[in-house]
Amino acid sequence: MHWFQKTIKLPVYKRGFHLITNIVLRELPEIQQIRTGLLHVFIQHTSASLTINENADSTVRSDFEAHFNRAVPEDAPYQHDYEGPDDMPAHIKASMLGSSVSIPITDGRLNLGTWQGIYLCEHRDEATPRKLVITVYGV
Amino acid sequence: MHWFQKTIKLPVYKRGFHLITNIVLRELPEIQQIRTGLLHVFIQHTSASLTINENADSTVRSDFEAHFNRAVPEDAPYQHDYEGPDDMPAHIKASMLGSSVSIPITDGRLNLGTWQGIYLCEHRDEATPRKLVITVYGV
Amino acid sequence: MHWFQKTIKLPVYKRGFHLITNIVLRELPEIQQIRTGLLHVFIQHTSASLTINENADSTVRSDFEAHFNRAVPEDAPYQHDYEGPDDMPAHIKASMLGSSVSIPITDGRLNLGTWQGIYLCEHRDEATPRKLVITVYGV
Repeated sequence: MHWFQKTIKLPVYKRGFHLITNIVLRELPEIQQIRTGLLHVFIQHTSASLTINENADSTVRSDFEAHFNRAVPEDAPYQHDYEGPDDMPAHIKASMLGSSVSIPITDGRLNLGTWQGIYLCEHRDEATPRKLVITVYGV
Repeated sequence: MHWFQKTIKLPVYKRGFHLITNIVLRELPEIQQIRTGLLHVFIQHTSASLTINENADSTVRSDFEAHFNRAVPEDAPYQHDYEGPDDMPAHIKASMLGSSVSIPITDGRLNLGTWQGIYLCEHRDEATPRKLVITVYGV
Repeated sequence: MHWFQKTIKLPVYKRGFHLITNIVLRELPEIQQIRTGLLHVFIQHTSASLTINENADSTVRSDFEAHFNRAVPEDAPYQHDYEGPDDMPAHIKASMLGSSVSIPITDGRLNLGTWQGIYLCEHRDEATPRKLVITVYGV
């Protein structure tokens, strides 16, 4: 049984949805040592999130940004608005999408579907470098 | 420590929410060998998803379909619409609900609550057979 | 490799979002024995859920309650309404937020970000004590 764990700091991404599959793979080449296992990616923030979606057409990612802005409007009557109108919507979007993804590992590679990629979902206007804790485990 | 992993192809389900707990259990009888562990079910698609909800009254599942159609309307101004008006809403619903569920295993059985079941959430009109990667691990 | 698993019954929380990180930590002190691992918390219900969000300002939690009440209105045309107008919205909110959270363990402690905490999301008016299955595993 193998366990590998690493904290990485992502580059700053602007508000929106961004593919980060290659960054995760590059940071944990130990995935190749796992025949059967799982990858767990966790984001240590409450105004950014992780999800899995289409890795090809970039308009999927811009449509995501537009949809979540409509679904969680900045002009709703929030009490928590100390850091501006994007503050509370960022928290809500983060919980709608989630703070972790977990993906099977099979024969040394991530067993994603053909069209799947890992998205960093940056919900703040003033984005900062986000930290991920990546855990790989299996046999 | 045991690890079992299997890729299965589901039958085609029409657009909507469908209970698949029994299919998952039938495909991995090795769950019975685990005293303490976890089941991880992963869907290899970006326009279908997995969630856990009520396993009894079927109107919960039809109300889910109606709610998510209202929450993610097909007539919103999407850029990504190559495959029809249900294309982009399917991607958004998939990320709202998620691409995996994980459930504790206790004394050789899935430790779900009395009313919980696993749902396949099919978000496309022209549904295809969906593939799941099921991983069971524990002692 | 260590595996610890425990079912706990939470006190009754009123409808809304509530921080339960300390309860989870108190119930599984075995986390301190894990150098590298994961914590999995699973809720055995379909009208309450778990998420991770800000652990400081309580208005984040009341704004969550207000947002999800707007996003999943009680006066929509639900078929499943046997237990009152909060019944079906509770099921939908539970699947939007999810039935489990998983968090890395590093050097004997939960590796949450500074501002992260675990929320119990109680979606029913007539709340009952909720059961969690907590699983800790790692080396």
